[in-house]
Amino acid sequence: MIKVTVWNEYRHEKKSETVRQLYPDGIHGAIAGALKADDDFIVRTATLDEPDQGLPDKVLNDTDVLIWWGHMAHGEVDDALVERIAVRVRGGMGIIVLHSGHFSKIFKKLTGTSGSLKWRDGDSCRVWVVNPSHPIAQGIGESIELPEEEMYGEPFGIPEPDELVFVSWFGGGEVFRSGCCFKVERGRMFYFQPGHETNTAFHNEKVKTVLRNACKWAAPAGEIIDSSGCEWRKVPTGEVK
Amino acid sequence: MIKVTVWNEYRHEKKSETVRQLYPDGIHGAIAGALKADDDFIVRTATLDEPDQGLPDKVLNDTDVLIWWGHMAHGEVDDALVERIAVRVRGGMGIIVLHSGHFSKIFKKLTGTSGSLKWRDGDSCRVWVVNPSHPIAQGIGESIELPEEEMYGEPFGIPEPDELVFVSWFGGGEVFRSGCCFKVERGRMFYFQPGHETNTAFHNEKVKTVLRNACKWAAPAGEIIDSSGCEWRKVPTGEVK
Amino acid sequence: MIKVTVWNEYRHEKKSETVRQLYPDGIHGAIAGALKADDDFIVRTATLDEPDQGLPDKVLNDTDVLIWWGHMAHGEVDDALVERIAVRVRGGMGIIVLHSGHFSKIFKKLTGTSGSLKWRDGDSCRVWVVNPSHPIAQGIGESIELPEEEMYGEPFGIPEPDELVFVSWFGGGEVFRSGCCFKVERGRMFYFQPGHETNTAFHNEKVKTVLRNACKWAAPAGEIIDSSGCEWRKVPTGEVK
Amino acid sequence: MIKVTVWNEYRHEKKSETVRQLYPDGIHGAIAGALKADDDFIVRTATLDEPDQGLPDKVLNDTDVLIWWGHMAHGEVDDALVERIAVRVRGGMGIIVLHSGHFSKIFKKLTGTSGSLKWRDGDSCRVWVVNPSHPIAQGIGESIELPEEEMYGEPFGIPEPDELVFVSWFGGGEVFRSGCCFKVERGRMFYFQPGHETNTAFHNEKVKTVLRNACKWAAPAGEIIDSSGCEWRKVPTGEVK
Repeated sequence: MIKVTVWNEYRHEKKSETVRQLYPDGIHGAIAGALKADDDFIVRTATLDEPDQGLPDKVLNDTDVLIWWGHMAHGEVDDALVERIAVRVRGGMGIIVLHSGHFSKIFKKLTGTSGSLKWRDGDSCRVWVVNPSHPIAQGIGESIELPEEEMYGEPFGIPEPDELVFVSWFGGGEVFRSGCCFKVERGRMFYFQPGHETNTAFHNEKVKTVLRNACKWAAPAGEIIDSSGCEWRKVPTGEVK
Repeated sequence: MIKVTVWNEYRHEKKSETVRQLYPDGIHGAIAGALKADDDFIVRTATLDEPDQGLPDKVLNDTDVLIWWGHMAHGEVDDALVERIAVRVRGGMGIIVLHSGHFSKIFKKLTGTSGSLKWRDGDSCRVWVVNPSHPIAQGIGESIELPEEEMYGEPFGIPEPDELVFVSWFGGGEVFRSGCCFKVERGRMFYFQPGHETNTAFHNEKVKTVLRNACKWAAPAGEIIDSSGCEWRKVPTGEVK
Repeated sequence: MIKVTVWNEYRHEKKSETVRQLYPDGIHGAIAGALKADDDFIVRTATLDEPDQGLPDKVLNDTDVLIWWGHMAHGEVDDALVERIAVRVRGGMGIIVLHSGHFSKIFKKLTGTSGSLKWRDGDSCRVWVVNPSHPIAQGIGESIELPEEEMYGEPFGIPEPDELVFVSWFGGGEVFRSGCCFKVERGRMFYFQPGHETNTAFHNEKVKTVLRNACKWAAPAGEIIDSSGCEWRKVPTGEVK
Repeated sequence: MIKVTVWNEYRHEKKSETVRQLYPDGIHGAIAGALKADDDFIVRTATLDEPDQGLPDKVLNDTDVLIWWGHMAHGEVDDALVERIAVRVRGGMGIIVLHSGHFSKIFKKLTGTSGSLKWRDGDSCRVWVVNPSHPIAQGIGESIELPEEEMYGEPFGIPEPDELVFVSWFGGGEVFRSGCCFKVERGRMFYFQPGHETNTAFHNEKVKTVLRNACKWAAPAGEIIDSSGCEWRKVPTGEVK
């Protein structure tokens, strides 16, 4: 069983009737629903305006994979929380960063880069599989068709991904490395581009499949080491555990 | 000074008036012309129908970077020549494989993969820079516009590139990893997608810049080791040169 | 269930009483025994002197992961068999290449490189885990102690590995990238250094764990595509499956 | 010409007679001396106790490659300076992080990881070249012999390096990925393990060669983009520069 916590900023849904109609249970609710369809997951949700911004230690330290959706309130996320998440990812927890999360504090901290990109309001989008045997691409076929999605364009300010799974095509003439795998010390991170709040990506069956696949891929292979286990350690000659 | 040998199959130009008009000096002539504009290069050309298929030892062993364009006659290239090229690349020679060379014997041998892809006759093509600080992308700006080029689409049957420099967008709806860097033991290989024989890519100034940049990037940093230097070598304890 | 075929050259065991005493059921027998301890595997063995060199189509095409041990008879393996294996790996089958298999035809074909290295008879060897959260390193702890193993030293003539899991230390002063993951189009390849025929690596419990982990890691995530599915494919505009 | 700024914490030299005797001009002086032997470099030094911690904007913004040595005072480096350095590296400036700099704020910020490792006082160290054709390994031969150096051991808490150039062997039984290349958005970072303050690595001719090579490798290929150029940018349909 993989314990997944879906974190959502949950502000657009409160402010915009349009968004609320698309995602009546919040974006986190839609994502959680996609995961609950698979018995391998134990799913929780968490949002910014909850106590401890939704992620007290008891929740974070009981999470195998964290999903992150944020946009208009990146700056409100506590630096101390971001550091706690980073320590846990470095220790082995998986993290899935969605869409505008490319500009979240946690994405920038874990990649060491700016996450910058080009953007434009709604466009047609085709998410191509460039790595068809990757676990995250199973069940997707050649591509995912999204009739309308926010355009994200290159250059994307990230490190060279360890594995590139998806590249998106946009009707207006752009491309984007839209599914990127990164190793973060002992943890795995997956960035996925679709998911604008005024579009319907999280109701797309193939997007739901990607989310399920990504959580399984990012789940830790071994135990998650707490931060003290990652400290600089003096060893005598010949010591091996 | 970097010694570049431009190898071209040189068959389409002989058979088709259309191709001959586009490339009156052959595709190799157009590429050689692009390189000769830079004093850092000593440029030679070689073609399939010359003695030793254009690459006798005295030429190959005096080459720092080999450029390869082939299409309709991949099967005619001698296996022994392909092996000689492979040994030299593994020893440090650079190689630039262009367009339909993704199906050449040498590309398949050096990647270990099929080089398979999707294709379609002429389409509009925009080659995006996804790695703007890479040496091969200098002087290109955001992208290269090619009004007409053969469409190449994913999945591209290759290993995960060590560095991805370009991704192409096509008007018909496809994307393609169009500028890929690979390390081949001691040598460097760059694959670049544009260059169909019935289009004009090799007259595009930005494409010419990519070719010059790629030759400089692929040039060996040290001496090229001949194949015997790559052999399995027995060493006594403590031996270090 | 993962179908694993363990291929062994099986010549040293026939010629040398020393080797036969270490591996009375052959190296393939020892490896098969390690795998059979795990109910997730269906295990078969195959050897060079069997009909079709042990790998007729009905066996190869029913294999999810192939393990390869060869040494003195690399040259006797049929080129046509090597090509059949390569096509299947490119299509998604996993392959584990052990020890002196770095010089096998299949390893050189799939990496595109020479596989060259330094070597010396028996030395003390400590195989360090450099990627402790990798699936192949689970259950190993910090390192594997091998009191005696053939020394393999750098430089190792390979592409840059996609993931490096183990690095070995030798008492005589060398290091070696001893656990290397490669993506081969749709298939996964793992190279592992221990396993000299006159030593006892395949009786080491941690080595057995590595073999089981590696088979699970290399098992295909999706269906294995036969070679015809990898062919160059012409597509009309807008076609997406 | 490449403008290199050598930054040194410069505290050990002031506090310890032993260190002062080894590096009478400071570690920064020894490194600067190694670089000045090459006419391709314009070399400056900077230290922690200077105004602006040695790196006011006029210096940092006139630097192509920054070398960083720190150890006992990592915590004293201003967070705002670390952020300014990070922005410039992301924009294209090269950075070389030496020895105990694996625990500096800037290394942890740019890698996104902890930089943790094992350590032990003085041991014999042999730095092996595992990538002999890499620009940083030119002129080194097979390895660098350091009669005494602090031992650094795996696992090293970093992302998967984009290129691994050196792996160190230690007499006490450990290995370490001692020469690691990382892409940080538009900038290049090289980490190199030797250089303990009570040993003599920076007087070793091969170490000096590595430093010169690394500065040339890390030097920006194009212009360095200031942070505002890395911002999220809205574009209209079809806009390409």
